[in-house]
Parts: sequence; structure tokens; C-alpha cells
Amino acid sequence: MREVYVAGIGITSFSRLEYPLVEIAAYPALMALRDAGIKKVDQVYVANMGSGRINGQTGLASAVVDHLSLTPAAAETIENGPASGASAIKQGYMAIASGMYNTVMVIGAERMREVNPLEATDFVATLTHPLAEYIYGITLPSLAGMFARMYMDKYGVTSRHLAMVAVKNHKNALDNFYAHLHEDITIEGILDSPEASTNNPFVADPLRFYDVCPVSDGGACIILTTAENMKKLNKPMIKLAGIGQATDTHCVHERNDPTDLLAVREAARQSFAMAKIKPENVDVAELHDAFTILEIAESEEVGFFKKGEGHKALEKGLTKIGGKLPINPSGGLKAKGHPVGATGVGQAHEIVLQLRGGAAKRQVKNAKIGFTCNFGGFGNNVVCLTFIKEN
Amino acid sequence: MREVYVAGIGITSFSRLEYPLVEIAAYPALMALRDAGIKKVDQVYVANMGSGRINGQTGLASAVVDHLSLTPAAAETIENGPASGASAIKQGYMAIASGMYNTVMVIGAERMREVNPLEATDFVATLTHPLAEYIYGITLPSLAGMFARMYMDKYGVTSRHLAMVAVKNHKNALDNFYAHLHEDITIEGILDSPEASTNNPFVADPLRFYDVCPVSDGGACIILTTAENMKKLNKPMIKLAGIGQATDTHCVHERNDPTDLLAVREAARQSFAMAKIKPENVDVAELHDAFTILEIAESEEVGFFKKGEGHKALEKGLTKIGGKLPINPSGGLKAKGHPVGATGVGQAHEIVLQLRGGAAKRQVKNAKIGFTCNFGGFGNNVVCLTFIKEN
Repeated sequence: MREVYVAGIGITSFSRLEYPLVEIAAYPALMALRDAGIKKVDQVYVANMGSGRINGQTGLASAVVDHLSLTPAAAETIENGPASGASAIKQGYMAIASGMYNTVMVIGAERMREVNPLEATDFVATLTHPLAEYIYGITLPSLAGMFARMYMDKYGVTSRHLAMVAVKNHKNALDNFYAHLHEDITIEGILDSPEASTNNPFVADPLRFYDVCPVSDGGACIILTTAENMKKLNKPMIKLAGIGQATDTHCVHERNDPTDLLAVREAARQSFAMAKIKPENVDVAELHDAFTILEIAESEEVGFFKKGEGHKALEKGLTKIGGKLPINPSGGLKAKGHPVGATGVGQAHEIVLQLRGGAAKRQVKNAKIGFTCNFGGFGNNVVCLTFIKEN
Repeated sequence: MREVYVAGIGITSFSRLEYPLVEIAAYPALMALRDAGIKKVDQVYVANMGSGRINGQTGLASAVVDHLSLTPAAAETIENGPASGASAIKQGYMAIASGMYNTVMVIGAERMREVNPLEATDFVATLTHPLAEYIYGITLPSLAGMFARMYMDKYGVTSRHLAMVAVKNHKNALDNFYAHLHEDITIEGILDSPEASTNNPFVADPLRFYDVCPVSDGGACIILTTAENMKKLNKPMIKLAGIGQATDTHCVHERNDPTDLLAVREAARQSFAMAKIKPENVDVAELHDAFTILEIAESEEVGFFKKGEGHKALEKGLTKIGGKLPINPSGGLKAKGHPVGATGVGQAHEIVLQLRGGAAKRQVKNAKIGFTCNFGGFGNNVVCLTFIKEN
């Protein structure tokens, strides 16, 4: 199996973007080509969830490869809901490791603004089971609300812990130019002040407005290549060292214990095993905090903290930049934003930036091993990646 | 690079199916598992074009993997328009060749019946360029009509040649239980009789009703595995020996010569080179005859016949079953049907059946090398596969 390295990266603002979906995909791709110092690739993957449904465009990858003048490169669109991005990176890895292609561009792009904001939740709910969940009113926020309530009851997590995730990640996002939300929130402001009930209303009890990620447009790109090609490029040797993926029951209510995120556990285990490292070796991580409770739960399931102790690690400040294991230095989905199909590529972008030492004010010192957890559906399809900086 | 073999195959009728999309995907998958004699796979790919848009379901692969009780296997949806099927088979190949997974299930599934028949063309036209083609009224049939007109002018192809493709493929489909159309048509009936103008009206001049494939629902499945695993299964050694893929300009009018299908030529060249064979070694082929003119054009571009001579080979009967190189023994998209995302997997299904010697009345004698051409957009993304039966 050939080893696979990161040749270049690019990203757009995660925000409300005015330009068409194809441009949202092309912009970070051009940045990544320039970053890598190359002009051609053999294969383009575009991770996207909603182009057919909300943008009226299918065959997105074919349109993008032409728009970038990269024909006749092969091109496919990869869809795995909110985990589309890391899934596409996995395909890129296998394309190179198999010897089929030498240089692969992986783009994630989503243009959500074409959905009426009131219908965005409905669009994302096309991920739920149409007959056993959705018709009963289940949406992703409602699943997350029920999950949070069970988790809080079982492990003593409080609304204050959830708010601490939001405050930490919003703070990190202040130093990320590309983040969607640049808003310096405090526990006092969103929980304790008299205005809290109006500026931070309940979305899906116990989750409030500031527990939920924004609806973002955005794109990100990562170019992968062989060790041999890396010799020609003057770039740090960031290796895509581990990949893990696991699925779980489509319906959350079919799980023996809904607070157990089996797919997260299994995906992380595979990723660490492939990279030949342990969770405690990780220096920086991007976890899928579409809802604040998920950052806490995932930090335990992937093995950073014992089950039920993620919120204690948060309390102690271990997951802040400067702490033992900074989580979501980019701002996470919570504050950096969540352009669905682009999110996993965005997470990888942040980790590569951190391992290159290029994250400026939000830099995690001496970061050599980075990890991402990209969470599809409500934990029914999870992809975890491990990146290692070689000397 | 590890070699990749076909362990099992399955298919639904290509037809108007009553059952939900997840079932359309699951049914051929269960057939393929039984055919292979296995119960587990490491990865599931689902090729599909329209689930988000027309079936209101995203994360299709996650739903399918759960429905089949194949969790925690990895799962992704692959979209490349009408070439989604062969694209998904390519991913399956790389997953195994890279050493990442040992056994991969590739499903193609589409449920078109949720689209109002009058809107099916509009749905497929989401593949065209939204700003440079679609707003001017361009659809796939209209592109095919213009392409046919140019091709006929340039090479002396006539409406009679187009009808000969339809008659041949309809005849082949009579012996295919799973084909959408079982209708024994004749040149007399669809072209020469007084009723021809009513029972075979123009769709996009010069293309008439019988020059165009039906709008089908359907699913197909192919399970791939390693040479080592094949030893445990009592199955013929059908090797996925060659894969080629190429993209071309998204807009047909940007091509120097729109009658040149560059992506078909390049994808076929790659596929043959990888399989270390030449076009003349092929015993049986499934070409993407969404429109009759495409079978003629592709038979030239892939290298079976010289440019401009495909219609002469057709006239001579070379492409009939029993001829020198039978094309579309299954009935092709024209008569077997075209459930968009499933089509490429269906083509592979037919070739494997032929190489196994299991195609009954439509069997091509002594077929050892088979080839498929899966044509995305209007030739903007083409995937060609070569299968070889080993002794």
C-alpha cells in the first residue's frame, strides 16, 4: 500500500456566500493547487450532500472538473450526509494507495443559502428514516435534544457544560478569519443574564440556540499525493496515516443504548490502529460539534477521556488551546460553521494547518499528530482521520 | 496492487417498481450475497443520481447498509449522473486494490417513478450546465438530437441505421427476463408502415420515440473481492481487469467537434491498457445506448470499428448475438432500461453473466473478455470497464 501525503490545502469562508455552488467548490481548489504548486491532478472528488435537492444540479463533480480546466481528470461526487467530506478523503486515499492515481483533489462544497432558512432543518432531516423517524417529526436537532437529555441524566452533564463548549469554540473562531461566527460569547451572557432566555432560546430542550451550529455555505479542498511526488514539492510531510469508518443503525431508537455512539468508537479505533498510535498521542483534534453535546460525547467515545468524563476535562480547560488536548481550535462546527458536505474537508484543512504550524493566533504548539471525527446522520455513519507530521 | 474479482451479482427487473428506493437497492444486494455465498462485506457503495432530489432521501448508503444488516460496514453514495454505476465499481476496485477492504458490495439503484413522467427529462437535465445550456432549453434528448443530426450528416448514418439499433436491442431484450421492454419491434413497424408516424413520433428530430431509452426504476449489485477470498468461494474467476475514466467539457457546444466523444475514447483506451488487451480482443460489450445514435458512435470511439463505420458494422449484423462482436445482448439501455444510477452496475451484471456462460438464450458463445461503456452527462464523464474470465 503506497503512503499518502497532503500536497495542498484551500478553504473559503464558512459563511453566507453569494456565489454559485460550482464557484464555492472551485475557489478552495484553486487555493490548494497554488498551495501545492501544481496544475494538474488525476482525479477530483467533490463531497456534497444537497446539490441535487437544493441547488438543482447533479453531476456536480463533472461540472467542477471542467470549471477548473482539469479535464480529462476522473471525477465523482461523494455523498455521506454531514460526513461526506471525510468519506471523500477516504476515496482519495484509496485512489492513491491502490496505485490507480497519483494525485487526487478532494473538494467539499455546499451552498445551503438556496434553502429557505425555515426549511434547512427539513432538508437535513432527509437523512433520517423516512418511515420510522421523519414522519413522527424527528429532525436532527430533536434527536440531538433527546440524546443530550439522556446524556445529562446519565453522566451529570449540565447546561453549563454545554455552554462551556460553545464559549470555547466561539473564542477559538475569533482567531479564524474563515469562521462563520465571530461573536465573543460568555456563560454569563448566554445562560445567566436576564436576557439569556431571549438571546439564547431553546431550540430542542435542553439544547438552546448557542448549542447548535449555524447553517453555512462553504468549501474546502485538500490535495493528496504520493511520497514520491512530495519530493518535488517543497511542502511539510503531513501523512494521512489513519482512516476509520463505521456505520450504526439508521434509527437512533433501535440502539441498545442511544447514549453509546458505537460508530464513533469503532471508526476512531480503526483510524488509530491504522496510524499505529493511541488516542493519548493526539496533539490536536477537530470533533463534529454540530450540537455542543456531541463534542463532549465524541471526546469520550474516540478515547481521549473516559466515558462520562468529557465534561470534567472541559471544566478543567484541557480542551482549550493551551490545554492538554485542544479540541476544535478552528471554532468547530459550532462557530467555524457547518457547510454540510464541506465540513469533513474543512476539519482536515484545520488539522493540516495546525501540523504545518500555520494556524497563527490559534496555533496549538508543537502539534505533530492530529485527528478528525466527521459524524454522519445521527451517528449512523462516522469517519475518523489521523494525520501525522513526519520530520 | 491486489487483483480484484467478482464474487457475486444480483439484479431487479428494470421496470416501473412499486417498492421504496431502499428496497430497490436491497433486493439485488441480497441476491448477490446469496450468489457469492457470503454474509458480510467490509464496504457498501450505492450508486444513485436522484435520491435527494426525487425521493427525498439523503445518506442513502447509510440507510441501505442498515436495512441489509451489514453495519458496521463502511458506506458511501457515489454520484456521477448516468455513469454513477461504473464510477461506484471503480471505487470498489480501489478499495480492494489498496488493501483497505477485502470485500466490497457495489449497488446501483434508482427510483424514477416518483418523478412525474413529464418532468423526468427536466430532472435528468439537472446534469446540463445551469447557466450555459439548461436556461436555453437544452435537455439530454435535445443534445442527443443535435448530435445525431451532425453525425448523420458527417458519416452517412440514416434513420434506418438508428432503427436497426432499436430493433436489435429490443430483440435481445425479449430473452432478458429483467428487461423493461419486451416488445418485438421491426423496421417496417416503426419506420415504414403508415402507423409509424403515430406509434414512433419524433422526440428530438431526428430521434424518434424508439430511438430513446425508457425511464426505468431498478437496481443491480456486484460484489468484488480479493483473489485470496475467491479460493473459498466456488465461483468462476471473473477479473475486473481494466478501468478507464475521462471527463470532457461540461458544455457540448464548447467541444471543437461535438461528434468527437473524447472522453469515451480516452476512458476506453485506459481500460484496455490496464487490462493489457486490445479492442479486437473483446467478445461481448454493453454500450450506453440511452439514444440509438450513441451505440453507433461509442462502438467507433472505443475502437471496435473505425470512425464512421459503426453503422456499416451494424448493417452487416456484426453486433448481433452470433455476430463477430455482440453489443448490448441484455437489450441495452434502449430495451433493458435505464434506471440512471443503476445502469452501469447493470451493464457489469450482464457482462459477468455472459462470461460465466449464464445468459441462457441470449448467451454469447465462448465469451471470455467483456467490456462496458457507461456514459455520464452528454459525454462529459465516461467510465469504461474490462472484465476477463480466467481459466
